[in-house]
Amino acid sequence: MAKSKFEYVRNFETDDTCLRNCYIVVRLDGRNFHKFAEQHKFSKPNDNRALGLMTRSARSVMEELEDIVIAYGQSDEFSFVFKRTSTWFKRRASKLMTHVASQFSSSFVFYWKEFFGEQPLLYPPGFDGRVVLYPSNRNLRDYLSWRQADCHINNLYNTVFWTLVQKGGLTTVQAEDRLKGTLAAGKNEILFSEFDINYNNEPVLHRKGTTLIWEKREETVTKSMKLPNEEEKDVAVTRRRKTVEAHHCDIIGDQFWEKHPDILEDDTC
Amino acid sequence: MAKSKFEYVRNFETDDTCLRNCYIVVRLDGRNFHKFAEQHKFSKPNDNRALGLMTRSARSVMEELEDIVIAYGQSDEFSFVFKRTSTWFKRRASKLMTHVASQFSSSFVFYWKEFFGEQPLLYPPGFDGRVVLYPSNRNLRDYLSWRQADCHINNLYNTVFWTLVQKGGLTTVQAEDRLKGTLAAGKNEILFSEFDINYNNEPVLHRKGTTLIWEKREETVTKSMKLPNEEEKDVAVTRRRKTVEAHHCDIIGDQFWEKHPDILEDDTC
Amino acid sequence: MAKSKFEYVRNFETDDTCLRNCYIVVRLDGRNFHKFAEQHKFSKPNDNRALGLMTRSARSVMEELEDIVIAYGQSDEFSFVFKRTSTWFKRRASKLMTHVASQFSSSFVFYWKEFFGEQPLLYPPGFDGRVVLYPSNRNLRDYLSWRQADCHINNLYNTVFWTLVQKGGLTTVQAEDRLKGTLAAGKNEILFSEFDINYNNEPVLHRKGTTLIWEKREETVTKSMKLPNEEEKDVAVTRRRKTVEAHHCDIIGDQFWEKHPDILEDDTC
Amino acid sequence: MAKSKFEYVRNFETDDTCLRNCYIVVRLDGRNFHKFAEQHKFSKPNDNRALGLMTRSARSVMEELEDIVIAYGQSDEFSFVFKRTSTWFKRRASKLMTHVASQFSSSFVFYWKEFFGEQPLLYPPGFDGRVVLYPSNRNLRDYLSWRQADCHINNLYNTVFWTLVQKGGLTTVQAEDRLKGTLAAGKNEILFSEFDINYNNEPVLHRKGTTLIWEKREETVTKSMKLPNEEEKDVAVTRRRKTVEAHHCDIIGDQFWEKHPDILEDDTC
Repeated sequence: MAKSKFEYVRNFETDDTCLRNCYIVVRLDGRNFHKFAEQHKFSKPNDNRALGLMTRSARSVMEELEDIVIAYGQSDEFSFVFKRTSTWFKRRASKLMTHVASQFSSSFVFYWKEFFGEQPLLYPPGFDGRVVLYPSNRNLRDYLSWRQADCHINNLYNTVFWTLVQKGGLTTVQAEDRLKGTLAAGKNEILFSEFDINYNNEPVLHRKGTTLIWEKREETVTKSMKLPNEEEKDVAVTRRRKTVEAHHCDIIGDQFWEKHPDILEDDTC
Repeated sequence: MAKSKFEYVRNFETDDTCLRNCYIVVRLDGRNFHKFAEQHKFSKPNDNRALGLMTRSARSVMEELEDIVIAYGQSDEFSFVFKRTSTWFKRRASKLMTHVASQFSSSFVFYWKEFFGEQPLLYPPGFDGRVVLYPSNRNLRDYLSWRQADCHINNLYNTVFWTLVQKGGLTTVQAEDRLKGTLAAGKNEILFSEFDINYNNEPVLHRKGTTLIWEKREETVTKSMKLPNEEEKDVAVTRRRKTVEAHHCDIIGDQFWEKHPDILEDDTC
Repeated sequence: MAKSKFEYVRNFETDDTCLRNCYIVVRLDGRNFHKFAEQHKFSKPNDNRALGLMTRSARSVMEELEDIVIAYGQSDEFSFVFKRTSTWFKRRASKLMTHVASQFSSSFVFYWKEFFGEQPLLYPPGFDGRVVLYPSNRNLRDYLSWRQADCHINNLYNTVFWTLVQKGGLTTVQAEDRLKGTLAAGKNEILFSEFDINYNNEPVLHRKGTTLIWEKREETVTKSMKLPNEEEKDVAVTRRRKTVEAHHCDIIGDQFWEKHPDILEDDTC
Repeated sequence: MAKSKFEYVRNFETDDTCLRNCYIVVRLDGRNFHKFAEQHKFSKPNDNRALGLMTRSARSVMEELEDIVIAYGQSDEFSFVFKRTSTWFKRRASKLMTHVASQFSSSFVFYWKEFFGEQPLLYPPGFDGRVVLYPSNRNLRDYLSWRQADCHINNLYNTVFWTLVQKGGLTTVQAEDRLKGTLAAGKNEILFSEFDINYNNEPVLHRKGTTLIWEKREETVTKSMKLPNEEEKDVAVTRRRKTVEAHHCDIIGDQFWEKHPDILEDDTC
């Protein structure tokens, strides 16, 4: 039962260290979530309980892996960005992505009740992930812009599609036909002229997705203190804490990044 | 909001296809499970509820990913072996390992209650994973032997250690000192002469870990059938089904493999 | 001028160790050899001087890197196979392929004169290379068969094409048109019925390419020895030496491999 | 002889595309050049013929692969830097490094005579190579600084060492002992006080190595032209051409880079 005789098998492991000085992005995607959504009666086009649970799970990942500087989610996907200089898991890609996938998935089941109440989770869901590296701030921002543009395109489509079905009385096949070949302007027009809906007034959560970042918070807590030769008394103490905060805003333009200059590191390093 | 302008970022993804004609092993390890075990009051040296839950979660992974031909688990780790010729996820390493990690983790929380009853899960646990390739049957068997030898070495140590503490009244520090430098024979001797325990009679689940394989089962089910011009009647129908079965036996020697010749593919392919 | 301040850049190197227990194949291909052949007036369809020089350069590589167990070349390409268990360069892919490419290229220029005599080499030629891993003997043999089948297909085409041009008086465009859509049988037929050429009697060097392997040779050398109390006298001494030998035979079938059982290692290792 | 039956072996090739938007550095190192230098009687501590040949070979590589924006060489090594946005060979690492290694090696033999005249090259030399990626201008400059600092450290050592041997009459063992533990200042002092040599007056080629870059040159050539209804006459025509130019200067400080702003691309892309 000598272990040493077999230990040579360890040498078959390969090193998958991520290139230094690059942002490490781990993106998770739900597996068969179309079916999952149907079986769990998600409301259409967006289910706020599901979106809340995704965000809660992503927050759990960020709190576990502090080197994640920003996360962005929409629909059944979430992207996590590790800072350029992170040495978490010695930058081993496999460890980083499996830990994120694992923590997200266990959290999804763990927090289910908080969002779906008594509606039972029918089976344990699956997510798959990948790692992508981005060498510059521009590349990283373009990645996040790509995902947010994807959110917009899908949400506009889904909003019109389900409005045609739910309010317009079309079948799903008819709605699909109606939208074939339409551009953004055409879809906005259908919503506005036929259903009196201004797409820009739709919830930002649905239009912009969810961006999680670390923010410093000042908290004032009351502590009872007793100084020498004095009576005990209540004192207000101010603490600074970093917490994960959610934003539902545009991250394609410069404004968000100018307001939060600490997220990205300097390109010239 | 043109998506196309940003889509170039897709080209930063790298191809991580696993070499063909090799077994793909995904191994998961619990993160901070020492602390997790303490916080959830796992019994020592082995907690059958936890082992049962690990196995249940592994079974859930195998049922989801049918190309896994064998899985082996012990303590807080589980290894999953994809068949040599698997084309699951186009053999992309990242997809394979994240899906396994995700499915295992969501199952771990989902099935918690089945094994721990009313004892609550305090927080969502995390696992990390890795992928290793093995080109030959010998290499793969040596990998599994390595893990089972590890199981044996750890379980023997833990059994003596906790017997010294729980029955011998030693502190954990004293027990550690007592075992320093002892070989397997010495540990067996302590158990036998001082506590009248024959290690070989300890539960196989603890000594050998858990091996999961697919087995063909014949089931006889009763169906009511109605042939033309006849009355409806009950008929016994025999179906063959593949199910995941657990074994707690030696997988280092040849016997297990001779009994289950379908697990491994031919080396000469 | 402190070196240490900059040395962090070493950590950007990645590990590209080849998976253990796999054959490592390095294939080189001439760059722009169509143009190179024209500028150096290679005879068509095959130039024996060029083929000789390719083989001489490959032999130089094998003599430098003894873990290469077999090499196969045709036209302007050569493949080198490192044994499964090789630890040359710690199996680092980049080192293996660049050393092979470098040694081959410097040899090509170094030995030019031996094959081309006074005809000058006009400029230093370039080759590019790649590494491919094969886990089983079957895979490796299929790789070599693929290259030899390629040799056959190209040589048959080129033989007919240049016969049509050189003996049939066709222009290259007419010859190309004539061959469009023809199968092997059709090409053989043109050669036989129109030019009285039996393709199977063409030189094996052209039809089968060149296979280099290590062979043990017995050499008898005469040494003058002087034993105590005896006169010096000449003694025949037999030495065994491994030398690189060239073969021009079929390597797709089993015969070659049965005759040289030492080339491949056992699959069951 | 069906090729298709074997063609599946192509799928064993792996994709080794270099991450986008990173500088690709290929570094070559001479193999066993200590022995090569001795056998070819290189002068010590530096052989200008050998350094000239290295630079000539590197120039040949740059002229072949235009996406190389800068190359730096010293002793028996040369580094080649491909621009961040290069798509040469689709950024395939194996192709890039083998082509560089091949072109350099064939050039080394091809141009030998230009530098060594009638002294024969005894055997074809070998170089090995590697690829390293650098995401930022700072990283790349630090890489080049690392190599130039290495040049300085080695050249200072070698200069003192061989002065002690050649002029001081020490054996190599004595010289080694003498230098053990000395710092840069101590070595400079030995040169200055014992041999009246100011290290800073040593040739820049030896102290700084060789940097190759592309520079735009204006050339005035005389062409004979004939306009309609005019006599033929000679006309001076100015052409701009890019040529590879050698520098032997400091590349650690900013001056070189400010003078040649076109070498590096913008970090904020």
